Amino acid sequence: MSEKVVIIGGGAAGPKTAAKLRRERKDFKIDLYTQEDIISYSACGLPYFIENIIQEPQTLILRTPNDFKKENIDIHLKQKCINVNTRSKIITIEDLISQNIYEVSYDILVIATGATPIIPNIRNVDLKNIFTLRTINDGINIKEKMLQSKKAVLIGGGYISIEVMEALVHNGLHVTLIEKNKQILSMFDEDFAQTITDHILGHTPGQVNILTNEEVVAFLGDENNEVNKVITASGKEIETDFVVLGTGVKPNTDFLHGSDIKLSVNNSIKVGHTMRTSKIGVFAVGDCTDNFNLVTNRYTWVPMGSTANKEGRCAAINIAGGICSFDGIMNSTITKYFDYTISMIGISYKEAIELGFQPEYAIVTKRDKAGYMPNTGTITLKLIADRNTHTILGIQGIGDGEVNQRINTVIPAILSKTKLESFMNLDLPYSPPYSPAIDPVLNAAQIIYQKISD
Amino acid sequence: MSEKVVIIGGGAAGPKTAAKLRRERKDFKIDLYTQEDIISYSACGLPYFIENIIQEPQTLILRTPNDFKKENIDIHLKQKCINVNTRSKIITIEDLISQNIYEVSYDILVIATGATPIIPNIRNVDLKNIFTLRTINDGINIKEKMLQSKKAVLIGGGYISIEVMEALVHNGLHVTLIEKNKQILSMFDEDFAQTITDHILGHTPGQVNILTNEEVVAFLGDENNEVNKVITASGKEIETDFVVLGTGVKPNTDFLHGSDIKLSVNNSIKVGHTMRTSKIGVFAVGDCTDNFNLVTNRYTWVPMGSTANKEGRCAAINIAGGICSFDGIMNSTITKYFDYTISMIGISYKEAIELGFQPEYAIVTKRDKAGYMPNTGTITLKLIADRNTHTILGIQGIGDGEVNQRINTVIPAILSKTKLESFMNLDLPYSPPYSPAIDPVLNAAQIIYQKISD
Repeated sequence: MSEKVVIIGGGAAGPKTAAKLRRERKDFKIDLYTQEDIISYSACGLPYFIENIIQEPQTLILRTPNDFKKENIDIHLKQKCINVNTRSKIITIEDLISQNIYEVSYDILVIATGATPIIPNIRNVDLKNIFTLRTINDGINIKEKMLQSKKAVLIGGGYISIEVMEALVHNGLHVTLIEKNKQILSMFDEDFAQTITDHILGHTPGQVNILTNEEVVAFLGDENNEVNKVITASGKEIETDFVVLGTGVKPNTDFLHGSDIKLSVNNSIKVGHTMRTSKIGVFAVGDCTDNFNLVTNRYTWVPMGSTANKEGRCAAINIAGGICSFDGIMNSTITKYFDYTISMIGISYKEAIELGFQPEYAIVTKRDKAGYMPNTGTITLKLIADRNTHTILGIQGIGDGEVNQRINTVIPAILSKTKLESFMNLDLPYSPPYSPAIDPVLNAAQIIYQKISD
Repeated sequence: MSEKVVIIGGGAAGPKTAAKLRRERKDFKIDLYTQEDIISYSACGLPYFIENIIQEPQTLILRTPNDFKKENIDIHLKQKCINVNTRSKIITIEDLISQNIYEVSYDILVIATGATPIIPNIRNVDLKNIFTLRTINDGINIKEKMLQSKKAVLIGGGYISIEVMEALVHNGLHVTLIEKNKQILSMFDEDFAQTITDHILGHTPGQVNILTNEEVVAFLGDENNEVNKVITASGKEIETDFVVLGTGVKPNTDFLHGSDIKLSVNNSIKVGHTMRTSKIGVFAVGDCTDNFNLVTNRYTWVPMGSTANKEGRCAAINIAGGICSFDGIMNSTITKYFDYTISMIGISYKEAIELGFQPEYAIVTKRDKAGYMPNTGTITLKLIADRNTHTILGIQGIGDGEVNQRINTVIPAILSKTKLESFMNLDLPYSPPYSPAIDPVLNAAQIIYQKISD
């Protein structure tokens, strides 16, 4: 039976759902509505566009409306969904160009409205040259301003700020990062966050300043209403040419308040493993949905581009009549600061304690290849496991060596609750250009196991 | 209770056992006997010493007899074990310098005698400048000869030949590799072996020649008994300055024939998961032992430096009174040919058919990072899974991108028999410098799952 599928949202998850659904079903009618004027782009690539590793913003666009047209998928730009009625199966759309309001009926609705930056409640936050980074236009604006600037302030010490910092430092700017907590990258344990901070500061001494335990209370502007100073709670006045806010995001679900679609953590949309919401015929995918955490067995909200793609694919298969289950996530993250990889999977030691586990950990710092090989890098791994079950709870990894190779090894082991006893003797392939004879990640497991056994 | 532990063999597993056992137990008496004049070296590093990436052979030595002496471990060089009597707990040693024969008693015996190259039965194989590569002296001899040579012949198309080929090509030699089977790297499926062959030939056109389906029937020598020609069954006569035999290895267990220690596949020593042999008080570790294959659930014999290290560690823990179980192996291998990574885990499609599985596979060729990033590499993965159980049986990976990161991801999934349904949505960390939004290894799993579901 041919169905009329309406998708709202054009970031990563919506277009992925549309494209996969079309491959599965030629007969379905597929329409995608988005409030933006662009679709199907990689927001995660924006810092590298700003850095100018990528020159053209178009490079980040995976598919254009025209590409979709060829596949018989209609893309409706600048059309914002303002209401969903699941009983009548009708959504209300506002045309952002003409301001017209109209209704669209659906057989199946896919909500993929993503997330949007949180604008903190700081005095004068509406001055010019105070940016957030979410859309391609944000990226273009920041890059344009950066090219005329000498100094910038980043607010918030999360991944986006680290990535934007690399971009700005690479372009010669002096950068101050302000974080209200006592450490940047709050998901990491404090020791690791400190090592990362030390690395960032040491990479270009004097060019970067990181202020922790410091809150921004106001921005000051010049006669053109352009920000030129950041004022902190401790009384610091930091001159700046522009500001990037990296103070978190929230799911774009305001239009669902009052609807009967169940919301979850942080007002994300409650979904099951098949990406169905609480209402029959309504799916949700991507940054606007909640996530099941496979380590803590709790629902959480962690918007990630990779999850968005997997969820979109999964929803499409289910809509098409197939079966796909998305088990959940592990809060997996990775980024780099120049040649330094920063990654974390699962939960930290600190969080494990808070959640009532009995964690044990091992920290190893090793060469990433056989020690006698040239061009080895260093990696530091902190592996965390549970004393009761001998299963792995998380890993943090940093260094200029092949961190990602080790991190990836842990993920299926967390999923399958592999015990340390088995994990520590895993048959990882060995050759001097790729690892020491016993890989550092296995070393770490051996050390924890020995601690637990003693 | 203090025990007298005697270890035979000084490559990787024996010294590892000794060092780990000393850390666990200060009171044990530990003696290690080896027929070589050197101990504790990385044989896997020898090709890189020949290549001259590593200049000094000493670099490959991890610990000297003197290092061990400081830890109260006595190393006895050039002392060859020629008999084991498990009833009287006495071994017989031949002093290779004085030719004296003497006996040594033990409470616990660890056999770590390793493996030795097979010299094929080819006419004139005893000519000068026909080498094998196993010991540091072998490496020194080959390197010395290479530096005076223009052309070489490698016999056998396994990993060692690929690694030696890189060394010789890097040093400007013309190299001919002769393989009697229809493909090099026989553990790979034919399509992958062909891609690897094409890459090797394309890397330095004209400098390398690979002859498959070709058997060597004789060597010819000059007036100094130095090899100068290789004759094949099809009548080819290949001029050469030297030859390296990469025609396999066999376990060093001849001295156990007639003893009551049970042997296994290829005359390797039968061991259980705790590295105990069939006789109480006798352990065996490293290249001389059999291996349990976790994919096929059969015993096999796959000598590997990484396994040797893990087994040595495991035996030491058990000897010291702890508990360590070495589950088994997955035939994991990795090597490189210049910037091209070649890796395989588990079993091939071909082998899966032979073993009675109902395999399905997917081959993906993808960029290893987000496509819009600079400096991406290409990776080609062939993932193989079983239609009946939906579990992964193996993966083959090649390319100039980050193959190892993907290969490592599969290993714990094979161990834990994770189903494709779960594996294909694994929360691998995503950021444009590290992977596409959906990692190629997950793509491959998705494709197989779709094939199986259709």
